[in-house]
Parts: sequence; structure tokens; C-alpha cells
Amino acid sequence: MSIDLLQSKIRKLKTPIVVGLDPTPELIPPELLAECEARLGKTPEALAESYGLFCKTLLDGLKKAVPAVKVQTACFSALGWQGVKVMQEVLASAKKLGYYVLLETMRSDVGHIAALTAESVFGGLEFDGVRSIPYPCDALVLNGYLGSDGIKPYLPWLKGENAKNIFVVVRSSNRSAAEVQDLISGDRVVHRAMADLTLRWSMDLFGKCGYGEVGAVVGAASPGAVQELRKRYDTLFFLVPGCGAQGCAVKHAACAFDRLGHGAALCVSRSVIGAWREQEGTAFPEAALAAVEKLKRQLERYVTVL
Amino acid sequence: MSIDLLQSKIRKLKTPIVVGLDPTPELIPPELLAECEARLGKTPEALAESYGLFCKTLLDGLKKAVPAVKVQTACFSALGWQGVKVMQEVLASAKKLGYYVLLETMRSDVGHIAALTAESVFGGLEFDGVRSIPYPCDALVLNGYLGSDGIKPYLPWLKGENAKNIFVVVRSSNRSAAEVQDLISGDRVVHRAMADLTLRWSMDLFGKCGYGEVGAVVGAASPGAVQELRKRYDTLFFLVPGCGAQGCAVKHAACAFDRLGHGAALCVSRSVIGAWREQEGTAFPEAALAAVEKLKRQLERYVTVL
Repeated sequence: MSIDLLQSKIRKLKTPIVVGLDPTPELIPPELLAECEARLGKTPEALAESYGLFCKTLLDGLKKAVPAVKVQTACFSALGWQGVKVMQEVLASAKKLGYYVLLETMRSDVGHIAALTAESVFGGLEFDGVRSIPYPCDALVLNGYLGSDGIKPYLPWLKGENAKNIFVVVRSSNRSAAEVQDLISGDRVVHRAMADLTLRWSMDLFGKCGYGEVGAVVGAASPGAVQELRKRYDTLFFLVPGCGAQGCAVKHAACAFDRLGHGAALCVSRSVIGAWREQEGTAFPEAALAAVEKLKRQLERYVTVL
Repeated sequence: MSIDLLQSKIRKLKTPIVVGLDPTPELIPPELLAECEARLGKTPEALAESYGLFCKTLLDGLKKAVPAVKVQTACFSALGWQGVKVMQEVLASAKKLGYYVLLETMRSDVGHIAALTAESVFGGLEFDGVRSIPYPCDALVLNGYLGSDGIKPYLPWLKGENAKNIFVVVRSSNRSAAEVQDLISGDRVVHRAMADLTLRWSMDLFGKCGYGEVGAVVGAASPGAVQELRKRYDTLFFLVPGCGAQGCAVKHAACAFDRLGHGAALCVSRSVIGAWREQEGTAFPEAALAAVEKLKRQLERYVTVL
């Protein structure tokens, strides 16, 4: 099962860090962009190409350091189809290098539209007997505000050979998350209702590692939040954003892990892929690797992956 | 202001119908796909090309009948970059023909990622002094589960010259919407909390028509729901899905309109663009036009646009 794949990759590299590939113009080293513009002019193609080179070089540099990467669709699609084309290449590279690959769409579609996305992303498209996979990945990150209609179309793809995962945003790490997600409803808050649903969607879909194939995004924004959710939902795999540029404490995020250091992964993006901006004279892949190693050491104070 | 643009187009054509351009393989007439495959082979390009021809022919055929169209990004991006490229062409055609154009991404991003999308979609990209607009449109449909951090980056684009709109999913029309959106919190349900937020985001952003530049998606799934929301939120412009293939009653959706027949629009997709499947011997643009005219007459029993 796919959640076992993620957990085994984490155990192999002894670190539960997921690097977010969220390129923006500010994160691209000027010399890399200049090189692309020298070949392609100041065009959308050149910027897209620089995103591609940037991500592929990072993928190469981090392959022995992190088990998984998360690709942010918004960054690429902001450039139009040229960006999407490059994103597809980045996904293919990541899969080829052996990463567990998450695709963050943050979308919420229902019914036949969700089914269409699930089939395209997880199953691929068949043309003239040839199956092509436009977005090679292991998991999608989705928004569950529309309820089961938006999630159930993905569930058939979470079992069998070549099974995939989905992660549902339960409690995001941004400041305003509370406005909706922390509203009190009866004896629970809204994001706990979302966690309950996530658990229900994962019913009968468990990996050998004991965690469900439908995971949850749980931000490390407030100290107690992760801890409480971990206690209540001991079979949900948590993706935990917020410890990088957003500045949440690694100590708080560490509550997401079980006693074996399993059941969770930390997502960081800008603080790793943009680390070159803080380290003059260091090339961006080395700066990223150093940032990963630093976070690894911070996390090791609290979590040991067995 | 942009919501005035939508309202004035509705008043001009005397009908508040928005046609959803959500192409799927089943909705493409076989002869149209065959034509594309004859030229391009059985390839993703051929299917994407058929989506493009299908949508552009519909846009031509409906331009005197409906004031607005809504393009569903998921349908196109399911095909990979070839689909996204065609979607960009469809958006450009729709704008050129004078439609008010909505782009449905159903995404929820925050902070700099949301700002990036807002700038790309609403402002465009500048390369070498030339500004290009990858996704020409008047409005985005977004998911607000992440709260203000996910919406505020769009607000600067809702004022001034060339102002845009956003629509936030308040209450979706699918069956399972209740699982999250109808949870009771204090004296209101979650989707009313979302409507309250939407109203707050629209503060100081009102068109001359009296409606806010931040609109709400409000499904016509339950009889009383739309009516109650209309009473409480008399300055929110409502986009109302659910009356087409989902089978909600036009009578219930009609509660979304004010006494002048303003302040709302009905979204229909499959029941219009797939109408050719029910009308043997009728070409798809004529079948779509007939379906629009039929819905128009149904709606006119309850709503007169003044």
C-alpha cells in the first residue's frame, strides 16, 4: 500500500522531511534565470525552463537526504501551459529518482469532475492503446470542504497494485485558519469534524504500518493542536506544514509523530529551496542540502525514526 | 466595477444564466472528436483540440443568449499541458466575444501562493516589457476553508480600472455538502460563517448595483437554504449551481434573486453543453441553445430581470 511506501522511504532515510517544490521568481538564482533567458529570451518559456532546471537540480541534490517531495501546482500553472508542461517533467524526474511524490492541488471538486481528476492523475490517460501519465505522483493534497462527494471518487485508486494516497486539509498552518476550521460545533471544532470524516474515508484502507491511506494535513501553528489531534486520531498519517518559513516550532510539530517516529512527515519549502538567499557564495543545491540537514538535527532532538 | 459588468450583461440579455464549459470525453460529439483525430491521431492533443473546438463553437452559438460562461479548469488540466493550452485559448475566445468569464479553480491557497495566482490570473505576466494574460477572465471561483489568508491576496485586484471579482464557495449543491458546511456552530451553521466572512471580505468593495465584488456560490440543493441566505445576505451576489444535471428545482433557485431579478446567476453545464445527446439529429450548438432557451422560460415563471 502506498502509505507503507511513504513510511518505508522515511525509515530508509531516517528522516520524515518532505521538501516542497514551490518555485517562484524570487526563489530562482539570478544566474540560472539568466542562462535560460540567454537561450529562450525573456519569455514565459524561459521562466518555466528555469523552474524546471531549479527543481530538477534540487531533486538530484536531495535524493539521498529526503524521502519525499511535494509539488505545488499553483506555482507552475501561474505561468500558463508552459509552466504546467515543465511541472509534468519535474514530477516525472522526481518519480524516476525514487522520491515519494505529492502533488498539491488544494482543489475541491465533486462527482464526475473529481472522478476525472482522479483517473487522469492516478490512472493516466489511454490513447490508441498507449497509457500516458500526465502527472506522475503518489499522492494528491485536497481540500475537503465539499464533503464525501469530493473525496470518494479518489478512494478506488487507494487500493490494489500501484495504490495511491490522498491527504485532506484538516487544519492548515496559516493564521486565519481558525476563522472556519476552529469554529466550535457541539463537542468538537470544525477541523475535528474534518478529521473524523478523513478517518471515515480511510476506513478499510490501512497500510501495514497501521496508518490510513487517506492522510491529513495538520499545521503546526499552535502548540497544543497537533498533540491533541495525534492523541485522538492515532491512525491518521499527518503531513505537517508550518515549520519552515512560517516559523512554527519544530518542538510543536514533533508531537505529530508516534513513539516509533512514524505516522507523520514535516513539509518545508521556502526555507530549504530558497536557502541559497541566506548563504552567500553557496550554490543553491548545497544550500538546500545544508538547510535540510539543519532541520534534520533540530527534529532529531525530539523524534527518532525507528 | 466588475460585478456591475456582470449585472449589466445579465440585464442586457435579460437572463441570468451562466453556461459552464466543463468538457469531458462523453460530452464531445463523436464526429467532432473523429475530425480532430483524423488530423492529429489518437493523442492527448486531438482530445484537447476537440475540447477547444467544442467550447469555441458553443461560445459562438450562445453569444446572444447568455451573458456569462464559467470554465472548469479541472476538465482541461486532466489532459495535461495540452489541455491547459487549449483552455487558455477558450478563455481568450470567450473574452473576445464579450462574455463575462468565470474561471473555476476551486482552489484554496494562502499567502504568497495565493498572491502569485491572483497576479498571474488578474494582472498577467510581464516579459521584456510585454504583458501577457495567460488566463483571460473576469472572476475566479475559490474555496474559502483556509480563511482570510486565502482570500485577501485577491482583494487588491477587485478595485480600480479593469477590476475583477472572486466568488467563494459558501454552500455547495452536492449531497454531502452538509457534512462540513451545515455543521451547527453557535447560532449559525458553518456555511453561514463562510457567508459572514465573504461579506467581510467584500466590505468597501461594492458595485453600483449594490452587490459586493466578492460573491458567493450557493447551491440550490435544498428548498429553504437559498431563500434564507438571500434574506440574510442581501448584498452578496449569488452564483447558483445545481439546476441542471444535478436536478435542483428552478423554483428553489429563483429565491436567489432580488425583486428586480438582480443579484444572482444560475450556473448550468452538462444539461446545456451535453444537450445534443438527448436530441438526435440536432447539432450540438443548436441543442445547447435550445436547452438555454428552455431553462430561460422555466426561470421566467419566477424571475423577471429588470
